[in-house]
Amino acid sequence: MNEPTRDNIRARMARAGRKLNPSLERHALVLDGAAVLPNSAGLAPGELIERDGKAVFLLPGPPREFLAILDEHVVPWLSRHVDADRPAVQLFEVCGMGESDIVTLLEPVGFPPAVDVAYCARPGLVEIRLSSATAPLGSVAQMIRAKLGAHIYAEERIGIEVAVGRLLAGRKATLATAESCTGGLIGHRLTNVSGSSAYFLGGIVAYANESKVRDLGVRPEDLAEHGAVSEAVARQMAEGVRRQFESDFGLGITGIAGPTGGTADKPVGLTFIAVADAKGCVVRNRQFIGNRDVVKESSSELALDLLRRRILGLA
Amino acid sequence: MNEPTRDNIRARMARAGRKLNPSLERHALVLDGAAVLPNSAGLAPGELIERDGKAVFLLPGPPREFLAILDEHVVPWLSRHVDADRPAVQLFEVCGMGESDIVTLLEPVGFPPAVDVAYCARPGLVEIRLSSATAPLGSVAQMIRAKLGAHIYAEERIGIEVAVGRLLAGRKATLATAESCTGGLIGHRLTNVSGSSAYFLGGIVAYANESKVRDLGVRPEDLAEHGAVSEAVARQMAEGVRRQFESDFGLGITGIAGPTGGTADKPVGLTFIAVADAKGCVVRNRQFIGNRDVVKESSSELALDLLRRRILGLA
Repeated sequence: MNEPTRDNIRARMARAGRKLNPSLERHALVLDGAAVLPNSAGLAPGELIERDGKAVFLLPGPPREFLAILDEHVVPWLSRHVDADRPAVQLFEVCGMGESDIVTLLEPVGFPPAVDVAYCARPGLVEIRLSSATAPLGSVAQMIRAKLGAHIYAEERIGIEVAVGRLLAGRKATLATAESCTGGLIGHRLTNVSGSSAYFLGGIVAYANESKVRDLGVRPEDLAEHGAVSEAVARQMAEGVRRQFESDFGLGITGIAGPTGGTADKPVGLTFIAVADAKGCVVRNRQFIGNRDVVKESSSELALDLLRRRILGLA
Repeated sequence: MNEPTRDNIRARMARAGRKLNPSLERHALVLDGAAVLPNSAGLAPGELIERDGKAVFLLPGPPREFLAILDEHVVPWLSRHVDADRPAVQLFEVCGMGESDIVTLLEPVGFPPAVDVAYCARPGLVEIRLSSATAPLGSVAQMIRAKLGAHIYAEERIGIEVAVGRLLAGRKATLATAESCTGGLIGHRLTNVSGSSAYFLGGIVAYANESKVRDLGVRPEDLAEHGAVSEAVARQMAEGVRRQFESDFGLGITGIAGPTGGTADKPVGLTFIAVADAKGCVVRNRQFIGNRDVVKESSSELALDLLRRRILGLA
């Protein structure tokens, strides 16, 4: 039984008003001679054993805890211990273009044989990863920047909510959201970023049409004439939430997440996104392909990207 | 090139107002003699090749697409083709107790040697999985039901948002949410369920204190006296959103997601959760342990569980 670890677990449980039961005490067991790696996502610590020039890491099984210790302790340890000849890596996080569109644009230019190019597509965004053990990446990176321009929202692995948050914080600008089809996902993503209270004021989840009218000032006659999933309603949602929260930017989103609710005119996946600011309001629509999960995730991505472009003066 | 698959991809892209570029055409390539498994989460289909009494499944790499085809086609195929002697399985989804509390409660009773018991903990909930190739599970399952009672929210693998949705739909009751620390996560989870518009009206993401006062009617003097993370504010958020949305149930949540913002009195992870209905309002608080991600996830879980217990008359 590792005493500092047990004391640490006991102290955390005491702060939480919970007792240390025998099953939890087991979390404090670590091997003799192991270094303890603190677990920011749970109780059981990780362990590092070094012997005969080799290192063994023991990590807890729950994926969040595993990843927390991996990020906070294992990767930094590896960065310190692997030799300096590791390959150069350059990342591009791209929003607003599909993987196939990117490939179609970049492949005719081509890449030097010594440079590995990998694409990883997630709903609404694509990561491009260049790596090479021998060649410098500068000229390839410049070619990609020239071809993709403002579609690149970051050159490090951050979510678009982090990129948008930095832009808002840098301008001391505030944001409020009016969400229908995403149901709160955009607010959730924005508030995953520590410090987001500096720029995110909150929002309205206007899932029922009554809320769109009452809480956002959407005109009932526009709902009747154009339907809830329409340019007019997205625009009034963005303008309404900006007015209500007195924020610099208002973001509105309305769509058909599916699998039911689609029509011939307005199929599942159709989404209208609006960003309002002091200069006016821009509205975009997109037809997403995928199940409910994918439509929500992709449309939240595109909404944050439209906001990013508006802040940068590109939309 | 598989013609029906290509036509299908072309039709979906056309509906989305997008062209079929050469890179996308590759998604339509399937092996000769393969059965095509449609992909509800993306474009590239899965494939099934059966030969010499063996089956090979080819699935796309993006995890959501892989899982969609796995759930919709591969698992049903396996269920039809594996023999009837597979082990009996019984699941319990448990909320409101930690894994160690459950283990401490169940292990003194013990399990028959022929029954395998596995625990899987995620933020805010634990899954117990019983399985046995030889023994019936009925009496062990009864013991677990007797010991854990209403902490079990389902005996199948569904999220608590699905269980709560069924309870609300069955009572034709409506819900509105007032979220601070979770930032929209609870609304997002509720609206991940198709058909949730029958009972979820929407809500207020009251991230800034001004929104708590203006949009929910929280008393400024209570904010000043007790702070935003307090029983009084959680209660007024739940009551306020219920009043504003004219819903049967109002759910309020306020807490300190961290990593900053904690004090000695109110450490990171402290969360107040309130459920208001026609009979009154119940408030609970909990001190969660973990990083921002874990605190948000666990507190959304407990909030939905408090609502579940209130609907069932247990809270």
